[in-house]
Amino acid sequence: MSKGRFTIPVEENFTKELQGIAKLWGADAVRDCDGTRLPKDVKKYGKVYNTYFVVRGDNEWGRKHPEEAQRIFLLSERNLALSETLEISFMKGFLADEFAPDYGNLARWEVTDRTTGELVTDWEADRERDVVRIRNAVRMHEYTVSFMARITWHPVQIYNYLTNNWTCEKQLTYDPAFPNTAEYIKRHMQQWCEENPDTDVVRFTTFLYQFTLIFNELGKEKFVEWFGYAQTANPVLIDGFEKETGIKMRAEDFVDGGCYNSAFRCPSEKFRKYMDYVCRFVSKTIGELVDICHKNGKEAMMFLGDDWIGSEPYGDTFKDMHLDAVVGSVGGGVTVRMLSEIPHVKYHEGRFLPYFFPDTFFDGNEGSAVAELNRNWLTARRAIMRKPLDRMGFGGYLSLAAKFPSFVSRVAEIADEFRTIYDAIDNKKPYCTLKVALLNAWGKKRSWMSHMIAHELWYQSAYSYQGILESISGLPVDVEFLSFDDIREKGIPSDVDVIINAGDAYTSFSGGENWLDEKILTRVREFVYGGGGFIGIGEPTAVRGDRRYFRLADVMGVDEEIGFTLSEDKYNIRKVEHELTAGMTSFDYGEDKKNIYALPGAKVLDIVFSDRFKRDVNVGEVKMAVNDYGKGRSFYITGLPYSSENSRLLYKALCWTAGKPLERAYSSNVRTECNYYPASKKYAVVNNSPEEQKTDFYDVNGKKTELTLRPMEIRWIESK
Amino acid sequence: MSKGRFTIPVEENFTKELQGIAKLWGADAVRDCDGTRLPKDVKKYGKVYNTYFVVRGDNEWGRKHPEEAQRIFLLSERNLALSETLEISFMKGFLADEFAPDYGNLARWEVTDRTTGELVTDWEADRERDVVRIRNAVRMHEYTVSFMARITWHPVQIYNYLTNNWTCEKQLTYDPAFPNTAEYIKRHMQQWCEENPDTDVVRFTTFLYQFTLIFNELGKEKFVEWFGYAQTANPVLIDGFEKETGIKMRAEDFVDGGCYNSAFRCPSEKFRKYMDYVCRFVSKTIGELVDICHKNGKEAMMFLGDDWIGSEPYGDTFKDMHLDAVVGSVGGGVTVRMLSEIPHVKYHEGRFLPYFFPDTFFDGNEGSAVAELNRNWLTARRAIMRKPLDRMGFGGYLSLAAKFPSFVSRVAEIADEFRTIYDAIDNKKPYCTLKVALLNAWGKKRSWMSHMIAHELWYQSAYSYQGILESISGLPVDVEFLSFDDIREKGIPSDVDVIINAGDAYTSFSGGENWLDEKILTRVREFVYGGGGFIGIGEPTAVRGDRRYFRLADVMGVDEEIGFTLSEDKYNIRKVEHELTAGMTSFDYGEDKKNIYALPGAKVLDIVFSDRFKRDVNVGEVKMAVNDYGKGRSFYITGLPYSSENSRLLYKALCWTAGKPLERAYSSNVRTECNYYPASKKYAVVNNSPEEQKTDFYDVNGKKTELTLRPMEIRWIESK
Repeated sequence: MSKGRFTIPVEENFTKELQGIAKLWGADAVRDCDGTRLPKDVKKYGKVYNTYFVVRGDNEWGRKHPEEAQRIFLLSERNLALSETLEISFMKGFLADEFAPDYGNLARWEVTDRTTGELVTDWEADRERDVVRIRNAVRMHEYTVSFMARITWHPVQIYNYLTNNWTCEKQLTYDPAFPNTAEYIKRHMQQWCEENPDTDVVRFTTFLYQFTLIFNELGKEKFVEWFGYAQTANPVLIDGFEKETGIKMRAEDFVDGGCYNSAFRCPSEKFRKYMDYVCRFVSKTIGELVDICHKNGKEAMMFLGDDWIGSEPYGDTFKDMHLDAVVGSVGGGVTVRMLSEIPHVKYHEGRFLPYFFPDTFFDGNEGSAVAELNRNWLTARRAIMRKPLDRMGFGGYLSLAAKFPSFVSRVAEIADEFRTIYDAIDNKKPYCTLKVALLNAWGKKRSWMSHMIAHELWYQSAYSYQGILESISGLPVDVEFLSFDDIREKGIPSDVDVIINAGDAYTSFSGGENWLDEKILTRVREFVYGGGGFIGIGEPTAVRGDRRYFRLADVMGVDEEIGFTLSEDKYNIRKVEHELTAGMTSFDYGEDKKNIYALPGAKVLDIVFSDRFKRDVNVGEVKMAVNDYGKGRSFYITGLPYSSENSRLLYKALCWTAGKPLERAYSSNVRTECNYYPASKKYAVVNNSPEEQKTDFYDVNGKKTELTLRPMEIRWIESK
Repeated sequence: MSKGRFTIPVEENFTKELQGIAKLWGADAVRDCDGTRLPKDVKKYGKVYNTYFVVRGDNEWGRKHPEEAQRIFLLSERNLALSETLEISFMKGFLADEFAPDYGNLARWEVTDRTTGELVTDWEADRERDVVRIRNAVRMHEYTVSFMARITWHPVQIYNYLTNNWTCEKQLTYDPAFPNTAEYIKRHMQQWCEENPDTDVVRFTTFLYQFTLIFNELGKEKFVEWFGYAQTANPVLIDGFEKETGIKMRAEDFVDGGCYNSAFRCPSEKFRKYMDYVCRFVSKTIGELVDICHKNGKEAMMFLGDDWIGSEPYGDTFKDMHLDAVVGSVGGGVTVRMLSEIPHVKYHEGRFLPYFFPDTFFDGNEGSAVAELNRNWLTARRAIMRKPLDRMGFGGYLSLAAKFPSFVSRVAEIADEFRTIYDAIDNKKPYCTLKVALLNAWGKKRSWMSHMIAHELWYQSAYSYQGILESISGLPVDVEFLSFDDIREKGIPSDVDVIINAGDAYTSFSGGENWLDEKILTRVREFVYGGGGFIGIGEPTAVRGDRRYFRLADVMGVDEEIGFTLSEDKYNIRKVEHELTAGMTSFDYGEDKKNIYALPGAKVLDIVFSDRFKRDVNVGEVKMAVNDYGKGRSFYITGLPYSSENSRLLYKALCWTAGKPLERAYSSNVRTECNYYPASKKYAVVNNSPEEQKTDFYDVNGKKTELTLRPMEIRWIESK
């Protein structure tokens, strides 16, 4: 039984069993949670974490400075004009407790004719009735009001409040972009440090700006965007940005026709510049608070969630916050890597599932709790084997978990296994077969975030792509997140073996109009033609503007038929045998894509014919294809939701397109995987399933050994 | 047994049984066919039809005037530049016997950099090797050659020749846009009339320009477009057009990046103007030939197919051809209406299926032949009940049909039924419940052709829309084909009750960028808001450019999620009961559409959840919805392939959106339909199925009677 790298949640009145469990789990740190308080003698259990809020929690301050509340631009419903005068009740559909119209900034409001897209100037606001009256409206045109509002109730508290039927005070917000609050938050930080001498780690939950979270008039979620910058619409920032850059941010730049710059959108240059400005402000401001923590002998830890907007852990200014650590919830392999690779901090911590809450820890549910624990661990473990978190932990009420002895003992095993893995890897780089670059509109700044919505929330339009990252999070490959600007400015890095472009047409996932740029096209073609690999998933490189919808149809050997070339006969509709699909009998394409056809030279690996198939041309839906392009190769598939089979298919495709041999540091059974650690000369053959598995293990030289692995086992094998 | 309105195919050596069959079928005209000759005493069987070709058939003339061969612009394959010099073998992929590069018109050729879309000027043609050599090519750019070619083998003959392994001479083409051929075709017409005194009807097969039909190097179909104007690229026409309009038609205007102005494309103004110019030329030229026929005491009949391009039966210049009749193949209800409504001719004839060819009329296949006959008749009959053809007929070898006595007698029954229907309708307008306008990019010019490919060929991207027209062809509604220009210039006709917009995004079917025009939007909104009906199918009104993809999402109550508003919660995901779907248990959406969601006010009539459904928002695919909009109503469905059920669903939706009562001149059983002829005060309740059917028949006042109909029966009921 080992010790350390483990944070346990504690409660004021649950100290008798705590010591035993803490020892069993090897805990060396404790934390408080929502609704719990730390015990008096907390120091004896190890390092103490304490939550800290920067822009909420002090309603007295909020009440004193309503003019310094956080701001947002909101877009009203669309309203059809029936006569020359149109009145718009712009607050309709919004939660009145969350937002208050900011008439003090009326000059920033915009009225838009959505039928023409034009701005309207002939209008006035009726402050008594919260109505905008438009004159000379055009009948049968739709109009909206984009209005600035003060955020009068912190959205995360709204959620907790309404979900749990709280009756406590509603938390106001305040914004240090305003002068009084700027002073206040520094004063408050120092004071708090002095009042909490036991605290070793200030757990920031989080910084200045909440991700976009808008509730409707019924208090139900109306709009949620974990990457959203809507709530950074502070007039001081907007004016400061204009002064510095000459660029005026308008209401429309924020409401974006109602998309609020969703992460699915290819970000405009203007919006990205404003993001950078916000990031600089957040980093500078938080840097000053963190310095105060340090001066008081405390570490500063960021919780990656809630008010994380403007921190951008993979951005240029993140380092300026001087943080010691990050912590985040572990949903799967992608969140592990998203956390564990964040630069400029000393350690990374993951909070595992299940949360110790009554919804899981009720009488008779012990089996399910253990199953969820195993599922979470097995998914996360794949990524941990590649790039471990430095610490793990749980959250919630320990008293609840303590009632399930098999749960407690399974956590102990997992904690031990975690430490074993951590020690074995020893911060050394594991063996990588090749390097893959994920090409999308965000690049490095959104590393491991490029194809997900919120922190691994299931979205119908995302899971078929998120599966790529989930697969890769546990594959023995180097990963780089590449933006189109990277390629434009610096070309494709020389150590990249395979480029992946994946997503629906026009989204930031696939890149949209970036694919009209001949520089992008020629550089990617050159890369593949010279021997590189290309993997396209969904609608890669797609954009209207040419006969071909996939702009690199020549590279991939497939295109999407959007109707205009239907009159051209397509004869390449026969499935062929191929090493990539050998032995596979069924495929899961997730949301899939329709109307994909193969160009003459490509090899079709899977195609589906409808019952209505009648003619031998112009029909059939290609699902998977490979293509040769110069010395390089391409693999296309319509979608790749995460599964063991799809993860293996992707790995095979990576090796095949990169021209690398597959059976090196490799375990043949798809329920198993192999990691190799050259520094310690150890292999870890991992059983990702809760059943026993037989597999052929190949070492780095391709030498085969047959293995039988226990359920969930990691078999450590010393290299000779 | 009645007589007349029937054309029978005859053969030189099959006269013994002919008289009996001709009498049985009530034939009053005879025709020749491919591979048959008329008997000597042909006149005694009735009117004599004789096929006539204008631009092929005289190889002697073709050889004498190779410079007057028909022309086409062809687009080469895309070629990747690997160095500064790129050689393109532009004929690669084309059938060498069909096309000869026209170096005499080298100045009209274009070389295009398809990666940038720019024209390239630094190139030369190597006439010996049929190669274009590009200098200063950019590595990794793709280049094409758009070259003019002479059409050296008539494409329809290629098809027959290769299919039937003919060994006869390959037919050359010639074009009366050139001066010598212009004289020649008039001379030839007069001469032919003199040489064929028995001929009463000159059956033109057809006029000057073949629809686009390109073969590949293996003699297989490469590109086919029944509406295609590619083969009208005659230099004399191009220059004449420029002289008249100042508009220069370039190679690119014809090859259109490889789409060759497919009927799926929204036609450009430039292309439409050129079409009009071609039509004027064709009408004038053919008008002169028809006048010669008339002077020689013969009628002129157009076969709608083959070289029909430039005739546009629903266009402005069709009347200038002075034709007496049209004939075409009957594939279903749509082709019947397409033929029967052509203006400016005295009579319309349909050639029914099956064709008397050995592929159907072989030993032991009598049952199938009769079944095909019935299927074709039942489908066509729906449309004939609305607007009859004036004549019917068959084609092929009568000697083959004669071997199947049950086939011969069933044709006799059908011929009698056809004449009964014709007499009952007596060219009077049947009762129509309402008037529907099909709004698309072509409008009246492509009446009954707006959503089909070739003459009712099955296409994966078309059948889900073609089903609308097939349904309507037999429904008791008035039909108008409306273009966006019509709405822009004249607004929506006051007698229209319902507008249908149906198709994939950006196609001519749905209208693409026309939906960015505020005039279109406001006029359609005004129409619906004031009480009109709107039916959207597939991706109606869709175009990028706004937060909403369906530009009339407000009218329809549905939109397509293309990714950018995913972060907005969608709560309208519950199916509701509705009179339109009452009693229906399964639906056929054909190719269907994904990611359709309902706006708050709409009623969802059908929605499908995937197995992966986890959250109660942002998922689910709406398939059918209705919406109220002012005094008007809308119905949306993802696709509507033809079936009895879908036809009835559409009819119900038409009545419901138009606010008309359903049970008037109505037959409740979906396998049956009711037509009412006010002039003769007759109802025809039609059994469209080969089984007995019970149904509730409602007269125009809504009075109900129960009926039992024999298989395929038409029950004529006199109104009191």
